[in-house]
Amino acid sequence: MERIITLLTDFGERGPYVASMKGVILGINPEARIVDITHQIPPQDILEAAYILHTSHRYFPKGTIHIIVVDPGVGSRRRIIALKTEDHIFIAPDNGVLSLILKNEETKEIIEITNEKYFLKPVSDTFHGRDIFSPVAAYLSKGIPLRNLGKRIEKIKELKIAKPEVKKEKLVGRIIHIDRFGNLVTNIDRKTLSKLKIKNEKVKIEIGKRKITGVKKYYISVKRGELLALFGSSGFLEISVNLGNASKVLGIGKGARIKVS
Amino acid sequence: MERIITLLTDFGERGPYVASMKGVILGINPEARIVDITHQIPPQDILEAAYILHTSHRYFPKGTIHIIVVDPGVGSRRRIIALKTEDHIFIAPDNGVLSLILKNEETKEIIEITNEKYFLKPVSDTFHGRDIFSPVAAYLSKGIPLRNLGKRIEKIKELKIAKPEVKKEKLVGRIIHIDRFGNLVTNIDRKTLSKLKIKNEKVKIEIGKRKITGVKKYYISVKRGELLALFGSSGFLEISVNLGNASKVLGIGKGARIKVS
Amino acid sequence: MERIITLLTDFGERGPYVASMKGVILGINPEARIVDITHQIPPQDILEAAYILHTSHRYFPKGTIHIIVVDPGVGSRRRIIALKTEDHIFIAPDNGVLSLILKNEETKEIIEITNEKYFLKPVSDTFHGRDIFSPVAAYLSKGIPLRNLGKRIEKIKELKIAKPEVKKEKLVGRIIHIDRFGNLVTNIDRKTLSKLKIKNEKVKIEIGKRKITGVKKYYISVKRGELLALFGSSGFLEISVNLGNASKVLGIGKGARIKVS
Repeated sequence: MERIITLLTDFGERGPYVASMKGVILGINPEARIVDITHQIPPQDILEAAYILHTSHRYFPKGTIHIIVVDPGVGSRRRIIALKTEDHIFIAPDNGVLSLILKNEETKEIIEITNEKYFLKPVSDTFHGRDIFSPVAAYLSKGIPLRNLGKRIEKIKELKIAKPEVKKEKLVGRIIHIDRFGNLVTNIDRKTLSKLKIKNEKVKIEIGKRKITGVKKYYISVKRGELLALFGSSGFLEISVNLGNASKVLGIGKGARIKVS
Repeated sequence: MERIITLLTDFGERGPYVASMKGVILGINPEARIVDITHQIPPQDILEAAYILHTSHRYFPKGTIHIIVVDPGVGSRRRIIALKTEDHIFIAPDNGVLSLILKNEETKEIIEITNEKYFLKPVSDTFHGRDIFSPVAAYLSKGIPLRNLGKRIEKIKELKIAKPEVKKEKLVGRIIHIDRFGNLVTNIDRKTLSKLKIKNEKVKIEIGKRKITGVKKYYISVKRGELLALFGSSGFLEISVNLGNASKVLGIGKGARIKVS
Repeated sequence: MERIITLLTDFGERGPYVASMKGVILGINPEARIVDITHQIPPQDILEAAYILHTSHRYFPKGTIHIIVVDPGVGSRRRIIALKTEDHIFIAPDNGVLSLILKNEETKEIIEITNEKYFLKPVSDTFHGRDIFSPVAAYLSKGIPLRNLGKRIEKIKELKIAKPEVKKEKLVGRIIHIDRFGNLVTNIDRKTLSKLKIKNEKVKIEIGKRKITGVKKYYISVKRGELLALFGSSGFLEISVNLGNASKVLGIGKGARIKVS
């Protein structure tokens, strides 16, 4: 079965962790197509993992299985879950990392993974990504039914994801991700901005000590080195510097506030 | 169709961009073999991308499709092109990133990619790598003819690539790449050096404040920590330190001049 | 032949080196499944490569071929070898990088690789990873017999790997690896610790200026920010900080001593 299994972790790429997971998967299903989403999630940053998963998983074809291992509670009683939507299956610790999936897609079924038949033996106390998540995903990719993994459950942990505050003529959002180019991705999407009923070119934005007027379409809508706002490829409002690094220029990091009016 | 598609970008590996491209490709052609060339091109560094493409693509088999997304002009009127050589197809923005391919290989055909039938919908304004380059490459890998993508064009943008200045008994070259070991790769190839008609062991090299005599064969031709010059695996003259980092030892970066006599 | 070929190098991911190796392999065996172990070995750090190989290779299925290119002696008379164990084949320079394989597994056969029929031509003086290791692995993955590569040899280079000193009621070990989370991995495994005949909860550990009592099971056995010792997923005693970075908190790097009593 040539199914795709994606990996999203905070393991980095220096050590043996990611490769061990791939070895385990290919030992069970040599036909699996493994794709790295990223292994550069900052250690234990569940929110960042939720964001990256949200913005990348939807480009994968129906039937893809996503493994998420950002798992500071490994070894505790936190549950391990398999969540099925219309198109995908997600294998993750029950720590909120699937919050944006829950919020934006219809959940078909959630299983608490407990059937040791599909685990590597012995299961270590500190690396369930290798010993549970990977073999379970590999068996699923070979066609074993989700129900074989454990019992159906209804509720899983959901993080409070900071939503923009919408006031009458004002929006207060936050920077939720900074990409390699230094673009500041906010939590304000087109739909939220449209509530203000202001034309794109008249929108006023305050970030740090800077003000921006208008939402542009392209980075190159402004000159080299100039600040601008646009809707980025993930569908969120971004603050950018054409051919520059907005995060460095503005000295602004994740969590910073942005006002729109 | 089990064709290889390579990816060369400046996206880094922290974010959702590279994985989104892979998802799109595998959704269209599940048999495609995706290989990362690198995603660590410094943001918007078209010349570095041109160099890395030049030195790596030729090791891939006939029929490989290369996607290059170093695209500071995304959203502007810069064209998107497909360039076919005897062995490979290159999908890239028309911004000069294919200059070294143009210079060193015979071009069979260049197409301006305009046929929206092969694009993801809707096409974003800021991420054509995902919405145009990837699906187009995936359809090509399934066998659609190049001509379906758009009109044939003759001329594309070509960057001035700094060539070594050849004087009577002297060459002035430049550092065009620094690898992870700190080796300083110049733009001087064997053919250019041979114009000086000096024996390898008598060649005199000046870089920064240091002088080197002779071109060696191996790093280990000199003692640990000693400076040397040799022809590296990409066919260019390199300045190295055996078991050390020439870039750090000499305090020299990209663009620096080197004199050979 | 759908065999797995893994790559373990110190090349990093910025340059053309890794991609060139993959291109060569896929040109010879388009069905090969290439898996990156890591390319982030510190330049020329043979011991680190030996550790990463040791802890990751065993999760790959029978028949996997591992290429290791941490090769400061490239171009010298160091031999290139193929080592076969019950389950795997290793292609590596004869510089000690296979020491932990030699120590922990039964060697079935060692071949000195000399048959140029399976090399890329011309062979460069500085990049045998691309010109020798990769094509040889690709041909092996297609089923050519190991014996075709060269002559059988008996002895290869073995590094002295620091073993813990076991005294009557005391163990002195060393930090051999630091992972992305800052966990300090020692060279003390369960078997070695059991020689002390002390119960896990009574074990006393000294590292730097800090003392730890007891060996825990999980990171979350202690509070956030607290220091602990546990057996990590590679089977070695680790010093960690729950939800923190032990290496930074203790200011301790590779090679540091740890006392257990």
